[in-house]
Amino acid sequence: MSGIAKTPQPPYYAVIFTSERTSGDHGYGKMADKMVELAATQPGFLGIESSDRDQDGLGITVSYWESLEAVRNWKEHSMHKVAQEKGKTVWYQRFGLRVCKVERDNFFEM
Amino acid sequence: MSGIAKTPQPPYYAVIFTSERTSGDHGYGKMADKMVELAATQPGFLGIESSDRDQDGLGITVSYWESLEAVRNWKEHSMHKVAQEKGKTVWYQRFGLRVCKVERDNFFEM
Repeated sequence: MSGIAKTPQPPYYAVIFTSERTSGDHGYGKMADKMVELAATQPGFLGIESSDRDQDGLGITVSYWESLEAVRNWKEHSMHKVAQEKGKTVWYQRFGLRVCKVERDNFFEM
Repeated sequence: MSGIAKTPQPPYYAVIFTSERTSGDHGYGKMADKMVELAATQPGFLGIESSDRDQDGLGITVSYWESLEAVRNWKEHSMHKVAQEKGKTVWYQRFGLRVCKVERDNFFEM
């Protein structure tokens, strides 16, 4: 699941999730891994890119989806809802979430 | 320049730049800082979010712009062109760049 996502020709959708964590793990790492696994089994999932976060740093995760319907279905998934709730009450100091239509892309490999 | 970008009401544009570096710095850190400073002075720039990269890890930088014209102008900026060329020949093993229209967003603060 790591590295640059292999997405199809645009258009498709991206969900940019940018977050700052509270201190301590409190089950976050395990749940984050589980959510990535679960997202990957959802209809319309295209890929995910995630960068490591240093202490007190910004975490960025971008997931890619075939359609807005796929984005909505994942948002409403019951286990994901549980994680979202815990995110707001325990794990995240603050976050930003942006739903975007990818209009063009460009890839490079040395 | 760090943290979650304070962007206006959608729609606006996001450029998602995901990269894997070659080994060694070779002037990368200094140029990266300079490009963030320069981007911030461009017309239509709205903000930038960047996550730290661990060794061999994925780096993700998302910049936000008022319009596709602003995205294009930044792409064509002469100093940015120099950095892009050095990116392909020296700094990046591979990268993905996606230009997106942000359709909705949502922010949370504990």
